[in-house]
Amino acid sequence: MKYVFGVDIGGTTVKMGLLSDEGKCLEKWEIDTDKSNGGEKILPDVAASIEAKLKEKNISKDDVIGVGAGVPGPVDSKGVVHKAVNLGWGTFDAAETLSKLTGLKAMVGNDANVAALGEMWLGGGIGYSDIVMVTLGTGVGGGIIIDGKIVNGSSGAGGEIGHMHIKDDEEKACGCGGHGCLEQYASATGISRTASEKFDSWGGETVLTKDDLSAKAVFDGVKAGDKLCMEIASEFGNVLGKGLAMIAAVVNPEAFVIGGGVSKAGEILLDYIAPSFDKYAFSGSKNAKMVLATLGNDAGMYGAAKLVL
Amino acid sequence: MKYVFGVDIGGTTVKMGLLSDEGKCLEKWEIDTDKSNGGEKILPDVAASIEAKLKEKNISKDDVIGVGAGVPGPVDSKGVVHKAVNLGWGTFDAAETLSKLTGLKAMVGNDANVAALGEMWLGGGIGYSDIVMVTLGTGVGGGIIIDGKIVNGSSGAGGEIGHMHIKDDEEKACGCGGHGCLEQYASATGISRTASEKFDSWGGETVLTKDDLSAKAVFDGVKAGDKLCMEIASEFGNVLGKGLAMIAAVVNPEAFVIGGGVSKAGEILLDYIAPSFDKYAFSGSKNAKMVLATLGNDAGMYGAAKLVL
Repeated sequence: MKYVFGVDIGGTTVKMGLLSDEGKCLEKWEIDTDKSNGGEKILPDVAASIEAKLKEKNISKDDVIGVGAGVPGPVDSKGVVHKAVNLGWGTFDAAETLSKLTGLKAMVGNDANVAALGEMWLGGGIGYSDIVMVTLGTGVGGGIIIDGKIVNGSSGAGGEIGHMHIKDDEEKACGCGGHGCLEQYASATGISRTASEKFDSWGGETVLTKDDLSAKAVFDGVKAGDKLCMEIASEFGNVLGKGLAMIAAVVNPEAFVIGGGVSKAGEILLDYIAPSFDKYAFSGSKNAKMVLATLGNDAGMYGAAKLVL
Repeated sequence: MKYVFGVDIGGTTVKMGLLSDEGKCLEKWEIDTDKSNGGEKILPDVAASIEAKLKEKNISKDDVIGVGAGVPGPVDSKGVVHKAVNLGWGTFDAAETLSKLTGLKAMVGNDANVAALGEMWLGGGIGYSDIVMVTLGTGVGGGIIIDGKIVNGSSGAGGEIGHMHIKDDEEKACGCGGHGCLEQYASATGISRTASEKFDSWGGETVLTKDDLSAKAVFDGVKAGDKLCMEIASEFGNVLGKGLAMIAAVVNPEAFVIGGGVSKAGEILLDYIAPSFDKYAFSGSKNAKMVLATLGNDAGMYGAAKLVL
């Protein structure tokens, strides 16, 4: 058996996994992300942790295919990171650095893209080779996989679908500085904002309370048949379905894989996205399936490992 | 020297080219597209024309790398055409058929995608490997090239950017059956329609006349400083720039290559698209250059040849 390491570098912790080359997770653990001095210790810490694990397990480097890492920031197809503000990183060849530090073959990708690869390999997108992963969390992330390969984009911004301009009349600015980005409506934050706006003017009964207008509360309410919640979910689904229709006209994927915290609502989420997708999508690209992600927070670790396989 | 044939199959004529493997066009000619009986003679006619050309030039098939063809309809990555209504074709493996008929290696792609490949190889997109070609003609076509390869899409609808939903309040239907498609505003037909709407309510002077509200007349007027024409061009540029910004958030190309009849207006066209692109594009994908196509009607023939190289 050959081994591979999957590493998902986040702003607080680094998730690490030792996997077989067939994707079986043999062990997973976390280390702290040390962001001091421009994050200069992060990759050495990762390398030291790999070294320690190999020693502990008595595994020779000859039996390790390599190490893959996902990073929260733009990464080009050569593994060069173009600033990862959450880690304090500037622009440098992270793949080369990680390879030198570990003495192993190393590949680096953007975390959302790498998560998409993980879901295609072992999660909701299994069996497909052309997918778009949509991560609905605090923001909206995306990862495009075509013919089994990540679309990194020319400056590492491939799959940044959260920042597609979707509404013209938005007055509030998105975190990116733009106005009317998909993320402003389809993220957990966006759903909560819509809930807050609608809650204030709602005349009827509702299970929602001013104290909890979270995306989770909204979808719990939808499941309980709450009308206000269903209205909020409809608005969310309408915007997201329209965005996915536009993406389908560009890359015509086999499937959209919906993940992130909001996707914990389950299949009912898809019921709200699908009608809008169907309404706005070009006939030739309507074939796209809509499925839920299944790997949760481990998608990045799995996908990172897949990078080197 | 090795040879390659590039074939661009249109609804009226088939453009054919004999090229060197370095992309030098040695000879080009046309044959009629015989659409009788579901277009069953089209590929045999192409094969016969290739056979005749080889004989005429005394070229052995051993010196021919293959034949590539562009087709007006969805084609998947295996060369299977999924209906080409303009040719009368249903669904069949056109690449395999063409290969059997010619005794040569054969590849088939969608005509807009193949034109994009041609422009990347020898035209406006030279030097790039991640481009989006936008063809502004009667409709709006598109071709996405990532890492030097065509994005065919899972059902051959990759790059169908003319049918991105871009306006919510459109009452007229697009040819595809949708409402508010990019094509309804950014094609020659769309520009002409905008011109017609604005002409009727225009109070001031203009070089436009009711008899000629074509896209060409509009951009000729723009060059002459005509205010109505500039307003029409602004509306066109605003919609197209917004659409390209959305595409950039998905695939983050190095360059947009703008072609088709409307692009004959020249660089001034880009002056109308760029501000809107810059306004709506995500900061991380604003790096995309905007250039004009240079191969005109030969892009498909060149790109088809490139398919087999």
